[in-house]
Amino acid sequence: MASPPMPRFSASYRIETPLDPERAAAAMAGEQSSGTFLKLAGETDALRERHAARVEAVTPLERRQAPSLPGALPGETYHRAEVTLSWPLESIGASLPNLLATVLGNLTELRELSGIRLTDIALPDDFIEAFPGPQFSVGGTRQLAGVDDGPLIGTIIKPSVGLSPEETAALVRQLVEAGIDFIKDDELIADPPYSPLAERVPAVMRVIEEHAQRTGRKPMYAFNITGDIDEMRQRHDLVRDHGGTCIMVSVNWIGMSSLVALRRHAQLPIHGHRNGWGLFYRHPQIGISYCAYQALLRLAGADHLHVNGLGSKFAEADTSVIDSARACLTPLLEAPGRDDRAMPVFSSAQTVHQAPATYAALRSTDLIYTCGGGIMGHPDGVAAGCRSIRAAWEATASDTTLEEHARQEPDLAVALRAYPSPFSG
Amino acid sequence: MASPPMPRFSASYRIETPLDPERAAAAMAGEQSSGTFLKLAGETDALRERHAARVEAVTPLERRQAPSLPGALPGETYHRAEVTLSWPLESIGASLPNLLATVLGNLTELRELSGIRLTDIALPDDFIEAFPGPQFSVGGTRQLAGVDDGPLIGTIIKPSVGLSPEETAALVRQLVEAGIDFIKDDELIADPPYSPLAERVPAVMRVIEEHAQRTGRKPMYAFNITGDIDEMRQRHDLVRDHGGTCIMVSVNWIGMSSLVALRRHAQLPIHGHRNGWGLFYRHPQIGISYCAYQALLRLAGADHLHVNGLGSKFAEADTSVIDSARACLTPLLEAPGRDDRAMPVFSSAQTVHQAPATYAALRSTDLIYTCGGGIMGHPDGVAAGCRSIRAAWEATASDTTLEEHARQEPDLAVALRAYPSPFSG
Repeated sequence: MASPPMPRFSASYRIETPLDPERAAAAMAGEQSSGTFLKLAGETDALRERHAARVEAVTPLERRQAPSLPGALPGETYHRAEVTLSWPLESIGASLPNLLATVLGNLTELRELSGIRLTDIALPDDFIEAFPGPQFSVGGTRQLAGVDDGPLIGTIIKPSVGLSPEETAALVRQLVEAGIDFIKDDELIADPPYSPLAERVPAVMRVIEEHAQRTGRKPMYAFNITGDIDEMRQRHDLVRDHGGTCIMVSVNWIGMSSLVALRRHAQLPIHGHRNGWGLFYRHPQIGISYCAYQALLRLAGADHLHVNGLGSKFAEADTSVIDSARACLTPLLEAPGRDDRAMPVFSSAQTVHQAPATYAALRSTDLIYTCGGGIMGHPDGVAAGCRSIRAAWEATASDTTLEEHARQEPDLAVALRAYPSPFSG
Repeated sequence: MASPPMPRFSASYRIETPLDPERAAAAMAGEQSSGTFLKLAGETDALRERHAARVEAVTPLERRQAPSLPGALPGETYHRAEVTLSWPLESIGASLPNLLATVLGNLTELRELSGIRLTDIALPDDFIEAFPGPQFSVGGTRQLAGVDDGPLIGTIIKPSVGLSPEETAALVRQLVEAGIDFIKDDELIADPPYSPLAERVPAVMRVIEEHAQRTGRKPMYAFNITGDIDEMRQRHDLVRDHGGTCIMVSVNWIGMSSLVALRRHAQLPIHGHRNGWGLFYRHPQIGISYCAYQALLRLAGADHLHVNGLGSKFAEADTSVIDSARACLTPLLEAPGRDDRAMPVFSSAQTVHQAPATYAALRSTDLIYTCGGGIMGHPDGVAAGCRSIRAAWEATASDTTLEEHARQEPDLAVALRAYPSPFSG
């Protein structure tokens, strides 16, 4: 009986339940093991012992008078609690979609729960090592973009829809001449008839390659290749063959299986856009923590992952943005030569104003800082916009206030006046 | 200027907003077109006219004192409204992940909204016709399973985890001898080390083929092949090569791109399991209506789609279950020889009791009715369980009450006593 312990994976939740939390946790474990309301003939004790989900911990929290989510069993009070379940790795093997079917599955539908949020997933090394992880991570991205330190200063092609390949390329010319490090397609444009990648990629890359030959620095352009897997593989090859250095996908809509498949094919960094993510965090009692989910996206192969930005136009709290960015920069597994971090991508109404707080919270510049209007809307033009953002990050790194640094950086001074701070008032 | 109108697609939402609903709708359209806080240089009026999202309708509904979701702009009251937006098809082309990036994208994160639920998507014929849709639908499934009329009576292999391929095959032998039409793997088992498909498929299909040769009827077994796309293609081939007639996938975890790719490869019906779906419906003010989503899953190629069941153990309301099932059975496009319906799959604590109400609401038996304990837990065994469910549906179709029909169907009589009705008390 002294066989080595089987590796297990575990998932933690914040739940709300009309039942005693211990009973709710047992119902969760039951649903995610045998999954029926009867003890069945084939279900021996030995089998149950070996394969059943195990309740590892239940920590009661506060109580509420009313349920957060409809459809739950009636109760007099609703108990919140932290619950951790675990499963033998043998039950799923190394598979991300099947991991999700196990740690989420039907749990979100249980009437025993009036709230359920997946907060964390802990994976054994065996599982982590079965995936290739980010191929380029921070170091590879910096090398390709020619940015040794500081954040990659980036922007998004705007307007998001409607520009022809030639109009896009003309905008890219402006941006690369302005000194940008990183440009991305918007998530709203992938391969539409009015700007097919077969034309947009060569048009854009002609500009970038020309610039690279003249200046020795090749800004990174993330082409949105979102599509079905065969389309994405072809589009990846198209980007690669034209000298492109990054591909972007809407990770939530292509899905985990396609991201894994794309990574196994890819020779370029994968820029993971998480549009739709609001579905998973907008209500605090239902959803998935990005700290848990980003780990799976990295295992699947994302090199860059969006985290919103501080003081953004979106509903996410700044603390959540920082938690997400820190999670992306925390190794899944530490080993010599291994770097499985993803570069967090800050975006949404970012201007010079957010640089100090972002750095103060993160103490790292291993990030991509993208501004749309924050660069393109600078009163003195795109080049000034680009310089102003870079100046803001220089100030931050040298522990100088933006106002102080602006005395010697006129573009920063103009930006500080032109853009209202999201933190004042 | 008399060019033909461009085909457009539209999406409808139920929103909640601290702003005037018209202004909120305009913010939504802006976010899903130009996507920045400034009017930009490249954004001419002509381009805006051609590509911008258009607000088609805003219908104010009730007001609320408090916001349903945190993170929204502050307001004195929160207006609920129905909003419809439309976009030119030219902006995305025929792509499901890019459709989702457009109709959902960042909308769920907007601070202008304290509630957003995608309720409907209307697609032009051009878009629908670009997808292969369900390959087998109702007719093809009936033909493969040898069930000309009435629902396919099905079950799920339980316990969900832990059975070896041989144990699974032994259970399948019991079930097919009991007269079952349809068996499925649980969503918790796909290709784990303790029961690899390479062994489970041959073991199960040996039993089914033997039964088919003896009786002329071949029950359908849905093997859960969820994995990355290359794995799924290989596993599909394995199932097909052993005479299997159905593959199952966890649609939410493999993602839309992989489902499209799998469908283009598949020669077998695709059984779409929607585990995780609770994330999208559990709170009424954030999520996606299954009536909208199931259409996309059908375009991607699902032949069968889970809808929960009446009086189930889950939190979904019975009205929502029926709406979903009706939606699955409503053609996307009517044309001679075309059948793009998906068979709705009823499950979760189903017994003899739910048959009458299910039929009364749906007026159709083009469905799969799966019972776990409702068949396997019958006091007189699995064959009696199977007969009892079939008898319940016979009663329903002939407008007889279960109690009346039970007089001549002893297995039904036993089941009625053994299982408590979910509708009483």
